[in-house]
Amino acid sequence: VIRAGILITGTEVLSGAVTDRNGPWLSRRLQEAGIEVAHICTVGDRRQDLIATLSMMRRQRLQLIVTSGGLGPTADDLTVAVLADHLGLPLVLDEALRQRIELIVGALARRMPRSREAFDAGNRKQATIPSGAIVLDPVGTAPGLVLDPKGSTADAASASAGPAPIVVVLPGPPRELQPMWADAVGTEPLKRLLAATGAGEIRTMRLFGIPESVLAETLRDAEAAGVQLARLEVTTCQHRGELEITTRVPEGESDAYRHLERFLAERHGEELFSRDGSTVDEQVANLLRGRETIAVAESCTGGMLAARLTDLAGSSEYVLGGIVAYSNEAKVALAGVPAGLIEAHGAVSEEVVRSLAEGARSRLRAGIGAGVTGIAGPGGATDEKPVGLVWIAVAGPGGAVVARRVQLPGGRAEVRERAVTVAMHMLRRALLAASAALSPSP
Amino acid sequence: VIRAGILITGTEVLSGAVTDRNGPWLSRRLQEAGIEVAHICTVGDRRQDLIATLSMMRRQRLQLIVTSGGLGPTADDLTVAVLADHLGLPLVLDEALRQRIELIVGALARRMPRSREAFDAGNRKQATIPSGAIVLDPVGTAPGLVLDPKGSTADAASASAGPAPIVVVLPGPPRELQPMWADAVGTEPLKRLLAATGAGEIRTMRLFGIPESVLAETLRDAEAAGVQLARLEVTTCQHRGELEITTRVPEGESDAYRHLERFLAERHGEELFSRDGSTVDEQVANLLRGRETIAVAESCTGGMLAARLTDLAGSSEYVLGGIVAYSNEAKVALAGVPAGLIEAHGAVSEEVVRSLAEGARSRLRAGIGAGVTGIAGPGGATDEKPVGLVWIAVAGPGGAVVARRVQLPGGRAEVRERAVTVAMHMLRRALLAASAALSPSP
Repeated sequence: VIRAGILITGTEVLSGAVTDRNGPWLSRRLQEAGIEVAHICTVGDRRQDLIATLSMMRRQRLQLIVTSGGLGPTADDLTVAVLADHLGLPLVLDEALRQRIELIVGALARRMPRSREAFDAGNRKQATIPSGAIVLDPVGTAPGLVLDPKGSTADAASASAGPAPIVVVLPGPPRELQPMWADAVGTEPLKRLLAATGAGEIRTMRLFGIPESVLAETLRDAEAAGVQLARLEVTTCQHRGELEITTRVPEGESDAYRHLERFLAERHGEELFSRDGSTVDEQVANLLRGRETIAVAESCTGGMLAARLTDLAGSSEYVLGGIVAYSNEAKVALAGVPAGLIEAHGAVSEEVVRSLAEGARSRLRAGIGAGVTGIAGPGGATDEKPVGLVWIAVAGPGGAVVARRVQLPGGRAEVRERAVTVAMHMLRRALLAASAALSPSP
Repeated sequence: VIRAGILITGTEVLSGAVTDRNGPWLSRRLQEAGIEVAHICTVGDRRQDLIATLSMMRRQRLQLIVTSGGLGPTADDLTVAVLADHLGLPLVLDEALRQRIELIVGALARRMPRSREAFDAGNRKQATIPSGAIVLDPVGTAPGLVLDPKGSTADAASASAGPAPIVVVLPGPPRELQPMWADAVGTEPLKRLLAATGAGEIRTMRLFGIPESVLAETLRDAEAAGVQLARLEVTTCQHRGELEITTRVPEGESDAYRHLERFLAERHGEELFSRDGSTVDEQVANLLRGRETIAVAESCTGGMLAARLTDLAGSSEYVLGGIVAYSNEAKVALAGVPAGLIEAHGAVSEEVVRSLAEGARSRLRAGIGAGVTGIAGPGGATDEKPVGLVWIAVAGPGGAVVARRVQLPGGRAEVRERAVTVAMHMLRRALLAASAALSPSP
């Protein structure tokens, strides 16, 4: 097995000011390529901490290290200098690269003449790279690097720290990092490394509606029933109320995986909604596309359901729009909820959520309407209507309206997020039922 | 300086399936307490990788390690066993704790009698803890621990790995981890540690509208002008189009910080929108609360602006609602945009965005209306209207409508996110102008 470490640098990520998207993204790419990820480590722009993490990764004899960040024009960006030092590679100014960077930042520099000197210093810094490095063309202004120091004259100290890994150095902004990773994969050192992975494959299943402890029991029962779990690397995790089962299937072990899949499908047929790794969002999109249109009217989720439905490219084909009916007045004016209904039952009630779903559908002339109303907290709760109480309804396709009451755990953000997930699953079921009703019986 | 490491465990986080929220959250709490965070490391549920990371943290002589996750009832949750082993602490079954966990999960177990055995095994596992550990009461089912192995009989091997740090062991779900961290802070070992920090304070400023390289130049100029930057730990980062400057101000160095703050305010008065660390979301909320009401009509952001406005608790006081006018029909039917306007200028145009903002305001009888329409991509672009082109308008307070055209970088998700940020800043400016117009001149 080829193993890798991911090193995310940047005080902003370490301090919690910015959520790191690169670690998870790189991890998925590496796993898809059959590489096992040992660590994702985030360190600030401090030399000693960078070195400690690099040393740890080398001591573990990881064959690949991917870094993100620390390539900016400012002095607190240390990644390249520390790597060169740690791997025993001399730094050199790559004049051709400097000119390329100058071209890129030139337009910006001309608009701000006062900053000319800052740009020049920054360009020189970004063009100073370890000797022998393969340059990855900048998408923003920072070039990436692939270091393959096997043949180099690493000093004794660093040699004793373990064999030198291939190091891929990428910038921090995700929109620069992602295309540059694709370039890195095309370089000789990575092509060689990837050819050596005994790949196998990663398979994902998803369940909705059972707790993790019940799944754990199912896995034990599967083993007792002869499913060869030991040949697979199975991990389970809970996420926004869903369970995800990720399995690394080594080459030649697909029988064991099929056995596991069958066992789960028999035991949890209702809950196992994805056997191909697709998310509920993708499934709902596929069920809608070319067949139905949708509109939503939401209160406590305040636009999050509409935002999630329009998250996928191409959603304008089937999402007509939505109503954020946060105030009672908006419920009446925009979604056509009768004011008397709110007065009689309260804004968080089965009657109102049904009216929201139907109002969204009829106002926007959609095939399907969805409604959400609930107590996200921390305020607004009563004895009968505690924080986390949410009503969700789906109107159509066809005429019927299905409403469901759930009591969700957590604080405001979690209640809102989970309510959207429940709504997505209700939409999925309604769409599946409608498409089953349409298809000829077997 | 007291330094800490954060160790996030769990294959689901390492694999990128789940975004880690605990690392950033714990990092902010530690920094607020005056503790410097050296690393946030994510590892899977693999013994050797857990040990490598723990060893690295001990070799760096960190005085505190906080772990999250790996406390579940299933066999792949290893944190406690590995920690006990690594620190040379024997594991013992805490019978009182077992009974407490049993009480908590009892209700669930009764509803699923078939799972009785699974629950019993899980309870025993979760109640088996290192001898001498301080137990943090479970919020979910998993107890947390505070380990202070200073006086214990750690074996020679682990003693050579560096002095034993205090280890706080917390569960993975954020809604369990966060209250349990508050409990941990109240235990004797942490009280002692926190009393020893030479605190100082963390200050944050935020800017909107200049690139990072210009800020870097400003900092160099500040230093040249006598601002004692070397006495401060200043870090800058870019996030959703904003720049954040985080400064660690040691005790006795507040003059140096005030000097820096003044320099930035003079150079970037327009762009420096936050000197107290408040976010634009909080500022907009404060400007709205008790004074104005708001409604939005958004197209390409598909509900994200409404979702962001309703993200803060108490937002129902001033957010009346929103319209997700994704289709042209919805723009007409819900926001009252004249169909001829869309035909004449296209849905992504100044005319339509003004009409959206005014439509949101009038339809919901709000004091302020905001409108967003743009090309989020990847489809829908033309030569004149490329991906990233977004029009944003704010109507009122009062009568005026301000519209702005921006060309945003990145892919679909980034364009949508940044468009919302630009809208928040336009709302802030409109609200500030309105409140300045109302207050008596000095």
